[in-house]
Amino acid sequence: MKKYINPPKDKWPVLQNRPTLSTEKIIPRVTQIMNSVKQNGDTALKELSLKYDGNNIESFLVTNAEFNKAIKEVDFELKSAIQIAADNIKKFHTLQLPKEIRTETTPGVICWQKAIPINKVGLYIPGGSAPLFSTVLMLGIPAAIAKCREVVLCSPADKNGEINPAILFTAQLCGITKVYKIGGAQAIAAMAYGTETIPKVDKIFGPGNQYVTTAKQLASAEGIAIDMPAGPSEVLVVADENTPAEFAAADLLSQAEHGIDSQVILISTCKNKLNDIEKETYKQLDNLNRRYIAEKSLQNSRLIYLRDKNECLEFINAYAPEHLILAIDKPEEWADKITQAGSVFMGVYTPETAGDYASGTNHTLPTNGFANAYSGVNMDSFMKKITFQQISKEGIKNIGKTIEIMAEAEQLQAHRNAVTVRLNSL
Amino acid sequence: MKKYINPPKDKWPVLQNRPTLSTEKIIPRVTQIMNSVKQNGDTALKELSLKYDGNNIESFLVTNAEFNKAIKEVDFELKSAIQIAADNIKKFHTLQLPKEIRTETTPGVICWQKAIPINKVGLYIPGGSAPLFSTVLMLGIPAAIAKCREVVLCSPADKNGEINPAILFTAQLCGITKVYKIGGAQAIAAMAYGTETIPKVDKIFGPGNQYVTTAKQLASAEGIAIDMPAGPSEVLVVADENTPAEFAAADLLSQAEHGIDSQVILISTCKNKLNDIEKETYKQLDNLNRRYIAEKSLQNSRLIYLRDKNECLEFINAYAPEHLILAIDKPEEWADKITQAGSVFMGVYTPETAGDYASGTNHTLPTNGFANAYSGVNMDSFMKKITFQQISKEGIKNIGKTIEIMAEAEQLQAHRNAVTVRLNSL
Repeated sequence: MKKYINPPKDKWPVLQNRPTLSTEKIIPRVTQIMNSVKQNGDTALKELSLKYDGNNIESFLVTNAEFNKAIKEVDFELKSAIQIAADNIKKFHTLQLPKEIRTETTPGVICWQKAIPINKVGLYIPGGSAPLFSTVLMLGIPAAIAKCREVVLCSPADKNGEINPAILFTAQLCGITKVYKIGGAQAIAAMAYGTETIPKVDKIFGPGNQYVTTAKQLASAEGIAIDMPAGPSEVLVVADENTPAEFAAADLLSQAEHGIDSQVILISTCKNKLNDIEKETYKQLDNLNRRYIAEKSLQNSRLIYLRDKNECLEFINAYAPEHLILAIDKPEEWADKITQAGSVFMGVYTPETAGDYASGTNHTLPTNGFANAYSGVNMDSFMKKITFQQISKEGIKNIGKTIEIMAEAEQLQAHRNAVTVRLNSL
Repeated sequence: MKKYINPPKDKWPVLQNRPTLSTEKIIPRVTQIMNSVKQNGDTALKELSLKYDGNNIESFLVTNAEFNKAIKEVDFELKSAIQIAADNIKKFHTLQLPKEIRTETTPGVICWQKAIPINKVGLYIPGGSAPLFSTVLMLGIPAAIAKCREVVLCSPADKNGEINPAILFTAQLCGITKVYKIGGAQAIAAMAYGTETIPKVDKIFGPGNQYVTTAKQLASAEGIAIDMPAGPSEVLVVADENTPAEFAAADLLSQAEHGIDSQVILISTCKNKLNDIEKETYKQLDNLNRRYIAEKSLQNSRLIYLRDKNECLEFINAYAPEHLILAIDKPEEWADKITQAGSVFMGVYTPETAGDYASGTNHTLPTNGFANAYSGVNMDSFMKKITFQQISKEGIKNIGKTIEIMAEAEQLQAHRNAVTVRLNSL
């Protein structure tokens, strides 16, 4: 871990640099995969599955029998835990459902705004060593609350052609019936363009490796909506003199184990605490199954001593961390001054892991500084807002002249005329 | 205008085709402009202004003296109209301000979501023949309501180095003090990267020609947020046997005059009405100052007879029009079934022009079918939502086990450990 004592502000941008995300090299390969799926549909998917996932899938759609088998395989304790997490996520996200807005801006001119579910959404869930069933909850529950008409989930199968049972259990818990055994850039292409089997969707959600995120970028450039731009996961932890070093170290490691490009930053106004947390981090590291990953990302991690609270806040808002843990005494005195972050964890008993799984907040959050303009996934992500207006004869009399004058001044005579013909008819 | 009687559903996709938007040819030129601004800042802007707008700008920032001059030049009647429109837009958008959401999902686990203004936003307002001061209102007012810390507006100056006075008047009405005399792709580059004079922003809004929209696309691919993907403007009008042909014709023309690539579609379950509206459209066309533009876009416009209300609704939702005018008798019986549209105009006295200028709704709307997943500009566009959580000792006791089980099942041991160290300390 690299330590910085009182770095001058002109050095902050360097300390806040993210790992570079060069996807340029793989764009040609991903473009080729996407074109192949666009042109050859399921045939291409079968070839690509064989090539990349080493499996020979006959039918991509997970059957009822497969669902039932998976549900039996997940042990009772895990099922209960997933159910508790689901209840919390549902509670917090249901509250976010937008209310209809309606007002009469001028007598006879009624305007309203209504949130409507996006018809068809596609969720991507990575496979591999860690079966991310928690991400199924984070995307599947808001899609269900929004009442999206069609929810499609793609996830790669293993060599035996199977998807991890916990993913299937969680999918059915979220009411998702269309689960397809397909992964990688080809899964994104399938949802972006549609194939004989897999429906084209309006918006694609979910994390993935660089092939997946590049495919999402390319789909986005073609007009398919995506949840948000992607980057490696990151956490910024703030410690004060009372932060238990054990807690802060565990939080840093929980981020560091994600991937070798994960970014971990600790800031504190207490020098001793920085040292204690550093020691404790290496102590805990030894016992981790993913220590080789965590070790690598720790090499790029930063421990930074800053002068005071104000400097810390300035640093936080400039960095715009995906996860911000305020492992300090009175976090509520800081919260109102946080203007850029994905999700904020307040106080020493609030680990990021709580939000990753079960507290109720969403774990799909803006990385790479995108918290400056993007929100994490929330109910808005699954809905679009449509405005309506209804104008009466009285209304057009009241507002007509105003519109005519403005349209005329913009030299748009036909715009003006659409009002004039109505006024003349009255 | 092309007429289609009862087209079979498999022909609908062709009837709903948008004008193709090929920006590929200009990408190299726009990339060059953007790189030049990135590298040479204001110097590049001066060169590009001279080259493309034919003006020799010394200082891009509009001065107080220029503002004052402009304010004097706008006549009283137009000022009053703009003020009335501003009041309506403010009323409708203020209602959209998101409320804070807060709940205790589990005893001791409090989660909340707060909307926070995007710090720095950049608004682009095209110049040219029609000074789009209405777009200043549509972007400037929500930015002010959101309390964005910095609002920057770029608009090209004419050959004399001046911006249209109505644009400056409207900018100051919205509290925008940083107006820069720069247009085109170079203005987007300036706001995306920042120059010596023009601040880098977090999100860029506003319409423009294909150079501007391509520059926004490219900026977006680099991680600068933009309002939404762009395409030519469009309207779908629904007429029944009672729709005054004069009104519907005026509505079609108000869209057709936008540009030669504007798309205009009329659907009806009444054949005679289609013919009447067609005749009336050509009659009104003769008197327009922009008739050469309108004539061109009418050549690609479509008049479509459909069997019944259900077929019309199906057609509308499949097309996802930017503007939908229900110029029919009982639009409220249709409204609840509209699931894809940017903005809906209900009844014969509700022209699109009302929403373009003064009713209170926003006129920056998703074109090109993007209404399937995108909302028009609204208060959400100027804010990001941050989640917070605070867990007490009791809370972590209540929820800790659940998190441990889930993290373990995802094979993320360090994630689990962040909870275990806390539980062990209690």
